[in-house]
Amino acid sequence: MEIISGGVCAPLGFIANGIHCGIRKNKSKRDLALILSSCDCAASAVYTTNKVKGAPLTVTKRHLADGVARAIICNSGNANTCNANGIEVAEYTCAQLAQRLGVEKDKIVVASTGVIGQPLDPTPIVSGLDELIGGLTDDGSQRAAEGIMTTDTVLKEVAVSFNIGGVECKMGGIAKGSGMIHPNMATMLVFITTDCAITSELLDKALKSDIRNSFNMVSVDGDTSTNDCVCVLANGMADNRKITEEGDDFATFMKALNTVTVSLCRMIAADGEGATKMLECKVSGAVDEANAKIIAKSVICSSLVKAAMFGSDANWGRVLCAIGYSGAEVDVSGVGVSFKSRAGEIEVCKDGAGIDFSEDVAKQVLLEDEIVIDITLTDGEATACAWGCDLTYDYVKINGDYRT
Amino acid sequence: MEIISGGVCAPLGFIANGIHCGIRKNKSKRDLALILSSCDCAASAVYTTNKVKGAPLTVTKRHLADGVARAIICNSGNANTCNANGIEVAEYTCAQLAQRLGVEKDKIVVASTGVIGQPLDPTPIVSGLDELIGGLTDDGSQRAAEGIMTTDTVLKEVAVSFNIGGVECKMGGIAKGSGMIHPNMATMLVFITTDCAITSELLDKALKSDIRNSFNMVSVDGDTSTNDCVCVLANGMADNRKITEEGDDFATFMKALNTVTVSLCRMIAADGEGATKMLECKVSGAVDEANAKIIAKSVICSSLVKAAMFGSDANWGRVLCAIGYSGAEVDVSGVGVSFKSRAGEIEVCKDGAGIDFSEDVAKQVLLEDEIVIDITLTDGEATACAWGCDLTYDYVKINGDYRT
Repeated sequence: MEIISGGVCAPLGFIANGIHCGIRKNKSKRDLALILSSCDCAASAVYTTNKVKGAPLTVTKRHLADGVARAIICNSGNANTCNANGIEVAEYTCAQLAQRLGVEKDKIVVASTGVIGQPLDPTPIVSGLDELIGGLTDDGSQRAAEGIMTTDTVLKEVAVSFNIGGVECKMGGIAKGSGMIHPNMATMLVFITTDCAITSELLDKALKSDIRNSFNMVSVDGDTSTNDCVCVLANGMADNRKITEEGDDFATFMKALNTVTVSLCRMIAADGEGATKMLECKVSGAVDEANAKIIAKSVICSSLVKAAMFGSDANWGRVLCAIGYSGAEVDVSGVGVSFKSRAGEIEVCKDGAGIDFSEDVAKQVLLEDEIVIDITLTDGEATACAWGCDLTYDYVKINGDYRT
Repeated sequence: MEIISGGVCAPLGFIANGIHCGIRKNKSKRDLALILSSCDCAASAVYTTNKVKGAPLTVTKRHLADGVARAIICNSGNANTCNANGIEVAEYTCAQLAQRLGVEKDKIVVASTGVIGQPLDPTPIVSGLDELIGGLTDDGSQRAAEGIMTTDTVLKEVAVSFNIGGVECKMGGIAKGSGMIHPNMATMLVFITTDCAITSELLDKALKSDIRNSFNMVSVDGDTSTNDCVCVLANGMADNRKITEEGDDFATFMKALNTVTVSLCRMIAADGEGATKMLECKVSGAVDEANAKIIAKSVICSSLVKAAMFGSDANWGRVLCAIGYSGAEVDVSGVGVSFKSRAGEIEVCKDGAGIDFSEDVAKQVLLEDEIVIDITLTDGEATACAWGCDLTYDYVKINGDYRT
């Protein structure tokens, strides 16, 4: 497997674009993105578990009932959620786009991100469709990625190539997500394309299995958004032998998918609202995977741990505390904790109690911008990994006055 | 029922003191507190549900097995948790105090609060015991309250008088708690005294019932501490007819207890680390009490809601979002939201969707330091209330570098 460039346009047959259509006031910010496949794709998506669901998700779910799609359209600046006519607006957008593309309306995936609770006027979107379609190119992934950004400060894009039965396949993804991100299913907007031939049933299986160890293990602030969606389109244009059952080819596909998703997870965590550091919590020796995940997520979600990491303070007692209240089955007298980064590694807790360590070395380790919180348990063999970020002044600043 | 002064010394037969013994470096901060009853008390306590438990709690639990106590000793500056010899240190402290007071060691309640994971040297505590005991007075509640403060900025003390069978009884409480506070049982240190005569069984019942609607509904930062404890001592010196069964007298006692606990809850929420505003989330119309509580807590715990309140931003979409991911049974299309404060009231959401409202009026309402987030549902008749605070720059500052 190899990391390549091109994002969602890396696979054969996908073109993309992103424009400013006028939903956002700032004209230098793109607010509308489109990804188009030159033929029908097997399609699968997972959605937020929030009971308050964005109207576009309802429409997308309906459109993907048959597992087939051609295009993804997504706006930023308005979540089209908790308003009176959200579903009509989303359907209208799909219909207008479908007509211009000459495809059936139910082959369109639609998504929105931005402020909740305000009506979405479809006028700028529809007025912008000709420009959006006219600008579709096979190097448009970055423009599409820009079109879905909100408080993101970094464009999130990745692609890989992999080999199925001697044929090179490619997979690419773009993502947005910075605040309102929490492990509980699809926790942001992620669009993944691949030219690998795979049935929609197996694509579905791959995605649902993958997110349990990728996007569901990311937390920026504990708030599960109303609009999050991870969608994969597979158009089969690589012409590999089609993946129709579990086995080696499916395993290779899963590995490619996981490379793309974990890569996007790390980008999203690192770009958490106001974040200065990406945190990775690794748990080993847990009694089973479920408990390992509970512990990793509890630590990565703790405001006190997050604030300590911001301050480069090796306050491991807060890690122990977060393990203790996680609800996981764990022998706390067997817990070990180390902090790791490019600058080195420092062990701070053994057998559930503090050990002498150099505060200077700890500070050096924690001053880096990627920190691993390594937790070893004595309960079993299971492992888990979760990603998050530090809690900073800027998180408060960004969220203290987001709308105005 | 009447609010009175005197804190834990308001009831007959209780004296208290707080001194600086030397655990904390800052000599102007008291770090050791003692509350003593002149006779044996019925005693009950509830403890943190965190699996990582402070050593003092283990000792206190043992000592309260018979439901009898005479005194409470508590230090700040070191949590005596996650170290090698915490239980021995806590037992030793109790033994030294008991000897000087001339009471049995197992009548001592012991508690600690402060940094986790460092050994607690009992030397300054034991050296300070004579001064601590020598200074016990019937107006010492404030000194004791100061002795248990950590990052608290405000002393937390309350007392009430109430009437049982024509006899005046009194109840008083002190509390500490500012960070690492979250609804999941005893979420801080709270010591309550009363001269009301009541059996230890009913005292236990009253406390366990009360905390479900008081301390378990407070959240500052979602982190459940390792050392939290709510303890009530009832010495019977008011000489009322003893409360031995549920009925009117018990109901009066419960009401007094709830007045004391909710009052302390509000003080703790208002003094949350870095807080500039106290938030109260009221839920009505829920399908049952359990669901009402889940919703109230989810809203009060949302980082995004908390940051919006800091910025006086009427971003009600985040309230809807927190209701949606709470896991509660709720018809989101029936949700109504209003913000209230001394400055007035503003309705912002009806039937699950936004309504037109004046941003200026909303700002005025939200600029106050006590905000009610009033949520009305259409699912049933149940209500709940939760307390919290805004998320501010200072929370990050306080917790980014707590130890050093």
